Amino acid sequence: MVLKLHGLPMSICTATVMTCLHEKGVDFELVPVDLFAAENKQPSFLAKNPFGQVPAFEDGDLKLFESRAITQYVAQEYADKGTNLVYQDSKKGAILLVWKEVEAHQFDPAASKLSWELAYKPFFGITTDQAVAEENEAKLGKFLDVYETRLSKFKYLAGDCFTLADLHHLPCLHYLMGTRVKELFQSRPHVSAWVADITARPAWSKVVAMTKQN
Amino acid sequence: MVLKLHGLPMSICTATVMTCLHEKGVDFELVPVDLFAAENKQPSFLAKNPFGQVPAFEDGDLKLFESRAITQYVAQEYADKGTNLVYQDSKKGAILLVWKEVEAHQFDPAASKLSWELAYKPFFGITTDQAVAEENEAKLGKFLDVYETRLSKFKYLAGDCFTLADLHHLPCLHYLMGTRVKELFQSRPHVSAWVADITARPAWSKVVAMTKQN
Ligand SMILES: N[C@@H](CCC(=O)N[C@@H](CS)C(=O)NCC(=O)O)C(=O)O
Ligand SMILES: N[C@@H](CCC(=O)N[C@@H](CS)C(=O)NCC(=O)O)C(=O)O
Repeated sequence: MVLKLHGLPMSICTATVMTCLHEKGVDFELVPVDLFAAENKQPSFLAKNPFGQVPAFEDGDLKLFESRAITQYVAQEYADKGTNLVYQDSKKGAILLVWKEVEAHQFDPAASKLSWELAYKPFFGITTDQAVAEENEAKLGKFLDVYETRLSKFKYLAGDCFTLADLHHLPCLHYLMGTRVKELFQSRPHVSAWVADITARPAWSKVVAMTKQN
Repeated sequence: MVLKLHGLPMSICTATVMTCLHEKGVDFELVPVDLFAAENKQPSFLAKNPFGQVPAFEDGDLKLFESRAITQYVAQEYADKGTNLVYQDSKKGAILLVWKEVEAHQFDPAASKLSWELAYKPFFGITTDQAVAEENEAKLGKFLDVYETRLSKFKYLAGDCFTLADLHHLPCLHYLMGTRVKELFQSRPHVSAWVADITARPAWSKVVAMTKQN
């Protein structure tokens, strides 16, 4: 197999890349990395990502890491396959850049802390830090107010088409929808419709199925 | 003026965009936003960036925000002007994507906390939280070990040319070089040479001059 994704489905960042690869309909091999045995800190993995985190990715000779760099590369390189996840037009593309950054710098810092406190910690039997959870719920609520306004005007974050800006939200969203934070999404009608729409995508269902096997 | 940048030079994210605009040699108007009077939370500013943060940017009718989205747009849209800050080749471009993400998701979280604790807090007469500072110095040191290896093989982070991946480091780097964290950069010879090289760029000197006026 030419495309290799090193990681594991229960890692949010790995799941993001898997979703992108399924949307593009390109075949890839998922090479498991045992985070619990710290395989990601071993020299053979550090040669793939010197920061010692999953995912890492190989397209032939090209070695990449950082989930959002991999998805952008895949979306561009395999432009003619599967779902189109980026815009060619420069103005539309600029709006897509903005909403990709919103996911990375507004949504994700709060959402990933909440996933950790409310989904992963209970799963691993660790006590939730309620103060951290509440602080980030307040932040997320404010961000979702902005999303609600945006999604009342456009079907998707970057405009009328599903793009990487939406896709990057999926794994974290999935974990949050299994927690009390679900209410923050469901109480906002346009956000709620967007969540229903993007989580129903077949590419995402394939990833969910693999997460359950894990 | 067609291009308008809303923000202020002492804001790290505004300074990043200013540096990019100077590298491209495109004229722009800097429209000051009074953060101390919470002008960024007023409706007129929220119409430019609903998240209420500087910078915001206008290119005619196109309204953008999020510093790294703006720089990417400017680098592409004004490709034929000034310094080339991106690669056209898809494999080189993929490596650039990786190192832009490294700045955003590895370097910046540690570096911006350190700038706040060690540069801005003393400036505003607030006491530094030494525990936070030390935790982030340890993280930054590890990241700079990776940079040292990378920069022993390539002159710049994404390869042989100065790109957005380097540029995005400049404002934070500047503040850190005025603190004890300077040592972390200077003790690593290739990192140190890279810092000297990129901070000597004329576009950056113009931004430093404006920061001092502020
Ligand atoms: N910014 C990176 C973050 C990657 C990341 O945080 N990976 C986690 C799993 S989701 C990991 O490898 N954690 C183990 C560690 O950091 O040692 C990306 O988007 O790929
Ligand atoms: N991710 C944003 C961050 C922008 C940001 O943090 N701006 C700061 C100044 S450097 C700000 O406006 N702070 C005021 C606030 O958040 O209320 C970007 O890169 O543009």
